[in-house]
Amino acid sequence: MRATLMYGAGDVRVEELPDPVLRRPTDAIVRVVRTCVCGSDLHPYHNMPASEQGTQMGHEFLGVVEELGSEVIGLTKGDLVVVSFAFQDNTCDFCREGVQTSCRHGGFLSEAQAELLRVPQAAGTLVKLPVDEDSALLPSLLTLADVYGTGYHAAKRANVNPRTTVTVIGDGAVGLLAVLSARQLGAERIILMGRHKVRTDLGVEFGATDVVAERGEEGVAKVRELTGGDGTHAVLEAVGYKPAYEQALGVVRHGGVISRVGVPQYDEGPIGWGMFGGNVTLTGGPAPVRAYIDELLPGILDGTVEPGKVFDRTVNLDEVPDGYRAMDRREALKVLVRP
Amino acid sequence: MRATLMYGAGDVRVEELPDPVLRRPTDAIVRVVRTCVCGSDLHPYHNMPASEQGTQMGHEFLGVVEELGSEVIGLTKGDLVVVSFAFQDNTCDFCREGVQTSCRHGGFLSEAQAELLRVPQAAGTLVKLPVDEDSALLPSLLTLADVYGTGYHAAKRANVNPRTTVTVIGDGAVGLLAVLSARQLGAERIILMGRHKVRTDLGVEFGATDVVAERGEEGVAKVRELTGGDGTHAVLEAVGYKPAYEQALGVVRHGGVISRVGVPQYDEGPIGWGMFGGNVTLTGGPAPVRAYIDELLPGILDGTVEPGKVFDRTVNLDEVPDGYRAMDRREALKVLVRP
Repeated sequence: MRATLMYGAGDVRVEELPDPVLRRPTDAIVRVVRTCVCGSDLHPYHNMPASEQGTQMGHEFLGVVEELGSEVIGLTKGDLVVVSFAFQDNTCDFCREGVQTSCRHGGFLSEAQAELLRVPQAAGTLVKLPVDEDSALLPSLLTLADVYGTGYHAAKRANVNPRTTVTVIGDGAVGLLAVLSARQLGAERIILMGRHKVRTDLGVEFGATDVVAERGEEGVAKVRELTGGDGTHAVLEAVGYKPAYEQALGVVRHGGVISRVGVPQYDEGPIGWGMFGGNVTLTGGPAPVRAYIDELLPGILDGTVEPGKVFDRTVNLDEVPDGYRAMDRREALKVLVRP
Repeated sequence: MRATLMYGAGDVRVEELPDPVLRRPTDAIVRVVRTCVCGSDLHPYHNMPASEQGTQMGHEFLGVVEELGSEVIGLTKGDLVVVSFAFQDNTCDFCREGVQTSCRHGGFLSEAQAELLRVPQAAGTLVKLPVDEDSALLPSLLTLADVYGTGYHAAKRANVNPRTTVTVIGDGAVGLLAVLSARQLGAERIILMGRHKVRTDLGVEFGATDVVAERGEEGVAKVRELTGGDGTHAVLEAVGYKPAYEQALGVVRHGGVISRVGVPQYDEGPIGWGMFGGNVTLTGGPAPVRAYIDELLPGILDGTVEPGKVFDRTVNLDEVPDGYRAMDRREALKVLVRP
């Protein structure tokens, strides 16, 4: 099969690898129908040390079940499934507590930009979809694998509801879907901080009521101005760099919540009186997207929401390196891959 | 009247000052019946730069209403009242959202170690007590002014309930009352980290099921060992020094909450992958104790709880400097003052 490997920063190649095989009775082999490039893939694209063996890439996909281990229940060969970027048994105590990303038998997928994939803990990880392989809904359904669930996680963790005002920091796919999620949870005031007009326009379509293009202190001042000086109850941080966290601290209302879903690219940050004095909460983490699929699927199926609009370019598997480049140069918001 | 002033680190004096007077129609003048020395008073006791004018001290007290401004409703001269350490109108949007410490007309009291006190926003701040000035319940009722409400805030913010395991860091009055609060909220497993046996014994009486005297990495290892390697759902941090925060990060379970009520004596701290990867939440702040008085009062009145046990020494107003010294030397857990 062909698969995507990264050999170091900026060095993405599509190569022939042996087909994956079942290793455990809880595994499944899935043929990839749609996958994509994630904003978080850009971190290794910038930082990965060069290596000779390369690392397989990709963690979001829809596929068709090709083979099932003997212990996998509830699935059949030929099922079209969506797969959360973390695999999990979905039965352990952590899964029951809603942190499937910390599952006792879990881990993270990282081989999805390929033709075939072995998925561990298939029964807890694969969710059957009630559509065909040629459904027009595939792009939106694919977002359930990561970015939609991640934006939703940000909003849920921040307790977004009709009484909360919201700031979303970041106009990448996760930020835009955090806007959509906040709107779905009833928020009526959603300020989107981002400076790429094509993207923030989509944010407005998803429900943003205000767009603030300024960053740093200037951006903070603008959000404060828009909120009578108070900031917003919820701040959904979908970037991961320290200035975004500092911006979040600057725009959060007393008693409010900063909910991070951008993987932090820093270790230390301000958590002193500036946070404590206002009873500000800091939460978030890798999204247990499996937990949200059942909740988010109906809105996609009935057309209420169309999160798949975040995809603005489609490539085939051989063109994946171009997809990385386009996202890195911000020529594309999010790249869909049809293997 | 006599009042307590601090003129610099370690320099506490009781002096004659003019009696306070009403300044605004929302003020009240209250005669102090019981006050006390707070663990947080020890921070300036260690750090305050020397000054010539001195700073009035004290923020927890019970008293009798002596005078009322013309706009104060719901209170009568002669009422015995408990006063939260922050004053608030208890009607603004922040108060309604449960962050009375951020009230639009609020602030912090700091003149309670005295015979008389002016309390702003009296209607929103003073809570009438259904007992007399000579009630044996006064010590417990006094804890409603700060330490009990603060321990309770830690537990509430951490969503402590019958299904959560809890670690409390710190065996000061707030830590011990965080234990009591966690127990009241139904927690069945409460690990108290503290090394002063007299105090941790009281913690056990309040509901702690385990005591860990070790600190730092050793303490973290011990809590991990007690919890099958997982840590606890809630960590109530009632110290305020950075090592206590690091300890909290070390013992919190994935998906859990670190709830701080010790005023942080640091600005930056670790908030990178170690926190994010496990979907750990950091919350807490100055406790809106006014919000909890109605909830906590019945248990004191009916004898279900006796938070006043944290007072292990009583002094009169002239002896307040000795009270500071005794708490600083850990000869006393918490010092009650009868002016």
